[in-house]
Amino acid sequence: MKNVNNSKLRIIPLGGLEQIGMNITAFEFEDSIIVVDCGLSFPEDDMLGIDLVIPDITYLKDHVEKVKGFVITHGHEDHIGALPYVMKELNVPIYATKLTMGIIENKFAEHNLLKTTKRKVVRHGQSINLGKFRIEFIKTNHSIADAAALAIYSPAGIVVHTGDFKVDYTPVFGDAIDLQRFAEIGKKGVMALMCDSTNAERPGFTMSERTVGKTFDNIFAEHRNTRIIIATFASNVDRVQQIINSAYKYGRKVVVEGRSMVSIISTAAELGYLNIPDYTLIDIEQMKNYPDEQMVLITTGSQGESMAALSRMASDMHRKVSIKPGDTVIFSSNPIPGNEKAVSKVINELSAKGADVIFQDAHVSGHACQEEIKLIYSLVHPKYAIPVHGEYRHLKAQAQLAQNLGISRENIFILKSGDVLELDETHAAVKEQVQTGAILVDGLGVGDVGNIVLRDRQHLSQDGIVIVVLTLERFSNQVLSGPDIVSRGFVYVRESEDLLEEARHVVEEALEYCETKHISDWGKIKTVIRDELNDFIWKKTKRSPMILPIIMEV
Amino acid sequence: MKNVNNSKLRIIPLGGLEQIGMNITAFEFEDSIIVVDCGLSFPEDDMLGIDLVIPDITYLKDHVEKVKGFVITHGHEDHIGALPYVMKELNVPIYATKLTMGIIENKFAEHNLLKTTKRKVVRHGQSINLGKFRIEFIKTNHSIADAAALAIYSPAGIVVHTGDFKVDYTPVFGDAIDLQRFAEIGKKGVMALMCDSTNAERPGFTMSERTVGKTFDNIFAEHRNTRIIIATFASNVDRVQQIINSAYKYGRKVVVEGRSMVSIISTAAELGYLNIPDYTLIDIEQMKNYPDEQMVLITTGSQGESMAALSRMASDMHRKVSIKPGDTVIFSSNPIPGNEKAVSKVINELSAKGADVIFQDAHVSGHACQEEIKLIYSLVHPKYAIPVHGEYRHLKAQAQLAQNLGISRENIFILKSGDVLELDETHAAVKEQVQTGAILVDGLGVGDVGNIVLRDRQHLSQDGIVIVVLTLERFSNQVLSGPDIVSRGFVYVRESEDLLEEARHVVEEALEYCETKHISDWGKIKTVIRDELNDFIWKKTKRSPMILPIIMEV
Repeated sequence: MKNVNNSKLRIIPLGGLEQIGMNITAFEFEDSIIVVDCGLSFPEDDMLGIDLVIPDITYLKDHVEKVKGFVITHGHEDHIGALPYVMKELNVPIYATKLTMGIIENKFAEHNLLKTTKRKVVRHGQSINLGKFRIEFIKTNHSIADAAALAIYSPAGIVVHTGDFKVDYTPVFGDAIDLQRFAEIGKKGVMALMCDSTNAERPGFTMSERTVGKTFDNIFAEHRNTRIIIATFASNVDRVQQIINSAYKYGRKVVVEGRSMVSIISTAAELGYLNIPDYTLIDIEQMKNYPDEQMVLITTGSQGESMAALSRMASDMHRKVSIKPGDTVIFSSNPIPGNEKAVSKVINELSAKGADVIFQDAHVSGHACQEEIKLIYSLVHPKYAIPVHGEYRHLKAQAQLAQNLGISRENIFILKSGDVLELDETHAAVKEQVQTGAILVDGLGVGDVGNIVLRDRQHLSQDGIVIVVLTLERFSNQVLSGPDIVSRGFVYVRESEDLLEEARHVVEEALEYCETKHISDWGKIKTVIRDELNDFIWKKTKRSPMILPIIMEV
Repeated sequence: MKNVNNSKLRIIPLGGLEQIGMNITAFEFEDSIIVVDCGLSFPEDDMLGIDLVIPDITYLKDHVEKVKGFVITHGHEDHIGALPYVMKELNVPIYATKLTMGIIENKFAEHNLLKTTKRKVVRHGQSINLGKFRIEFIKTNHSIADAAALAIYSPAGIVVHTGDFKVDYTPVFGDAIDLQRFAEIGKKGVMALMCDSTNAERPGFTMSERTVGKTFDNIFAEHRNTRIIIATFASNVDRVQQIINSAYKYGRKVVVEGRSMVSIISTAAELGYLNIPDYTLIDIEQMKNYPDEQMVLITTGSQGESMAALSRMASDMHRKVSIKPGDTVIFSSNPIPGNEKAVSKVINELSAKGADVIFQDAHVSGHACQEEIKLIYSLVHPKYAIPVHGEYRHLKAQAQLAQNLGISRENIFILKSGDVLELDETHAAVKEQVQTGAILVDGLGVGDVGNIVLRDRQHLSQDGIVIVVLTLERFSNQVLSGPDIVSRGFVYVRESEDLLEEARHVVEEALEYCETKHISDWGKIKTVIRDELNDFIWKKTKRSPMILPIIMEV
C-alpha cells in the first residue's frame, strides 16, 4: 500500500469508461471512502453466454474499514444494478432518495438482502455526514423520478456530481431541477464538476418530458377507433403517468404488461410517484370485457428485447395478447445503440401483422444536451472538469465544451477505470492506478467465466467442435477401440458422412505415424492428431472447428 | 408442375424481404424467364460462423431451359454478390452496364468463371431481347456509378423496375437520371412499377452527391495543418472522385487503403469512371516522403468492420498507419442498421488516440426519399405498385405513398420470397408459391450448414460443452475406463475442479442406476447420463451446457 497524501481528495472511478453502464466512483479522503453509484453493464457482443457484468471492487475490499457508505443518484440499472452483488461482499450502508431506495429494495428482496443491509432514505436538500465527507442531495430531472445530483463536501474542496440529469422546467412529477442550489454552491466555490456526458455531442436543449404527453394526446385523438399499445422503458414512471393521463382523458382502460414494468409501477404507485385515477388500471384478464377502442396496453420491449412482452406479441408468442390489423403501436423510446436491428425486427413483424407503428416524436431523452451542460458549468463554475457517463467520444465532447467555457485544458480530466485523481484547490493530477475490472456473471457463477472460457465459446460458436476419441491399452499404447469422431456445430452429419470417414482415416494415419516414430507420450499423440486433422479439415472446408482429442486408457 | 397461365406475366421474388440484400427476381412469360439481379445477404446475428447467405435457385434450375439471362441493375453486393455461386449451377448470359460488369468480372476472376460465363455490356438507352422479353436500360443515379433502371417489355404489359436509385440533378459523374424516359414510357402505359423502398419512411428529397464535395472542401479548408483520413464505402466511386478533387485543390497527395477499395478504384479508373490528376495518387509506401498536412488517406472501414483498414488503424493493428493526435478522421458514411455499435467503438478508439473525428454532413444517401418516390410514380403512372428493396416497414411505407397517390389498395402488392404474382392489364393476384430459401455459405461449404448445426453452435456459444467419455466392455457393459469429463467453454477448469469431480460422481451414480435397472441399451444409458448431469449442472450453476456422452467399446 502506498501512502495516501492526506491533504488531497482522491477520486477513483472503479468502472465506467471501459464498461459503459458500470458506474461506480470512490471518493477517498484520509480515513474515509464514500462510493457514488454501483451500476452494472450488459455484456458486449463477444461476451458469449454472459448475463451481466459487475465491477471488481478489490480496492474497496482492501480498504473496507474506510468505506463509510454508498450514495446512489437514481434507480437505473447502470447506477444500482451491481448493488446486490457488491453488498454480498461489502456490507456498508446505502443512501438514496425514496423511489430509488424502493427500486433497490425490490432487488434486495430477490437476493435476500433486505435484513442484512443498512439503508437510509434521503430527501432532496438534505445532507448526510459520512466520515470526513458531507454529501448533499440536490433535485434534478431525469427519465426516472427522484434523481439527485450530489454536492460532495470534503476538506480538500467541494465536488459536484450531477448523476444522470436533464433540465426540465416543467416536469411531469415534482419539482424542476434545483438550479438555484447549483448556483449557490457554485458561488461558494466548487473544486470539481463531474457532469453527465451522454448527450454532449448533441446541440441545443433536451425537450421537456411534458411534450411527450402532448404527442400522446394527439395520437389518442387521431386513433379513437383502434386499440393502442405503447412500449416504453419500465422505469420511466413519468412517461407511464402521461399515458395514464391520456388514457383517462380519452376514456380508455390501461393494462400494464411485462414483469419489470409491473414491478416498478407498483412500487412507484405505492410510494406516491404515480397518480392513477380509480378504475383506470385493469388486469390483463379483464381486457376481454372491453372493446379495443377502450384499451391501452403499456408494455416492455421498446428495445426489441426478444423475451419482452411486445416482442412476444409481435411474434405470436404472447399468451394473452396478439397483434391485430388496425392496432396502433407506439414506440415511446429511441433504440439504445446496438439495439437498432432488434427494434427494426419487431417493427417489421408488427407492420406485417397490419399494425400501424408510430416510432417518431413519442420520446424525449433523459440526458442534458450541450446547452444544458453549459448552463450547469456556468452555474457551478468549477476549477476542474471531470466529464462522466458516456463513451469516450461523449466525454471528449464535454471536455471540448468545458474548454470553450474557459476551463483550461490541463484542468480537464477524462479518467479511465482505476485512475486515481488526487486533487485540491491548487493541484490535480492522476497519480496512480488501482485494480479494477469487469467481473462476468453467468448464471450463478460470478467471475468463474474468464477469457479462456470466452475464447472457447467464440471458437465453438464459429465452427463447432470435432471430438476424436480412442481407447489405448496401458503400456503398449495399442489402439483397443476407435478412433471415433463425433462433431457438433460443424457440419450436418448425415450429409457429410464421407468427410467424417476421411477424417477418421487421417487420424488413423496420424496414429500410425506416431507408432513408426515411437511417439508414446499422450500429449504428443494428441498434438499430432490435432494438427493433422486441423490441416485436413481446413483444406477440405476452409473451416477451423475446435479439435479435441480424448484418449481413454484400459 | 402446375400449368402456367400463358397469357400472364409472372413476377417471382426468389429472395429479398426475408433476407435483406438477397435481391433476385424472376420474370416469367410462357417459355421465357429473365432474372433481375442476384444479390447476397450477410448473416443475421444468430447465423453463427456463417460467411454469406445466397438464394435457393431451385425454381430456376427446374426451368433452366427457359432462363434466358440475368439482367443486373448495379454493382453492389446485394445485387451481384451471389452471381459467382449461381453461375456455377446455372450457366446463362449476364447483361449489365460497363462499370457493373467490370465489378462482376473482378469477382468472376476470383472464382475462375471468366472463361465460362457469357457476358454482354449494355449502354443506358439500349435494349436487349431475351425470349419473349425486351429489356431497356434507363439511366439512374445511385451511390455507385452506372446504375440502371429497367423497363421490362412483355406481351402482358410493361414493368418498370427502378433498381436502387435516387434523383440527382447534379451528379458528380455522367448524366442525371433520365426522367424524360420514365415519363415517355409512363405515357405508353406501364402495367407495374417496382420501386426502391429503402428510404420510403424519410420525407423530402435526398441531397445531391455533389453537396458532399462542398463539405469536403470546407473540412479541407479548416484542417490545413493535419493529416486527413476519410473512410467511405469502397464502391462509392463518385465520393472518391470528390475526395480526390478536394485533395488536388488543397495540394494533398492521396493514398488508397483497404483491399476492396483498391480493387474497385482501379477498375473504375481503368474504365474511365474516375479522373485522377497526375501525381496525385501515391503508394502507401511513399507516404513517409510527405508531411502530414499534404496527405489524404481514403480507406475502408466506415462501418466499423473489425478487419477493415480504419479499424486496424484505430486499434494499432495496421502495419503502415497509426493514428496520431491531431489527425482528422472523417466518416463519409452512415452506419448501416446493426453496425452502430461497431462504428461507435472505432470512433471512441480514434478519439482516445487524440484524433478529431467528424461524422456529420460528410455523407448523403444513395436512395430516393418520399418526394423522389412520388415523382417516379407520377411519371410512370403504373396500374400496379410492387414496392421492392427494404424491410417490411419500408415496403409498407411505400405502399402507403402509392395509396396516397391514388393507386387502389388491391393493386398494391408486398411480395414475399417465392410468391408468384400473375398479372396482366386487367388482373393481378398471387397465385402460388415456389420454393425459395436462404443457402448458408460457410468456408467452402455451400448449404451444408443448416438449422441443426446453427442450433448447436448457438447452444455451444452460450454455455459451452461437457463431454463424458467411458469405455465399456463388450457384452458385459462393465466400465473399463472413465467416466472422464472434459469441458470447453463451460467453466475455467482449474478453479472448478470440485464441480467437475462432483459431476463425475453424478455420472458414476447414473451408471450404477443403469446397472441396477438392467439398462444395457447404450442409447438409454446416454440419455440417463445426460439427464442426470443436466439436472446437476443446472442446480449448481444455472447453466445448460451441451452434454455429450460418448461410449467406447472394447
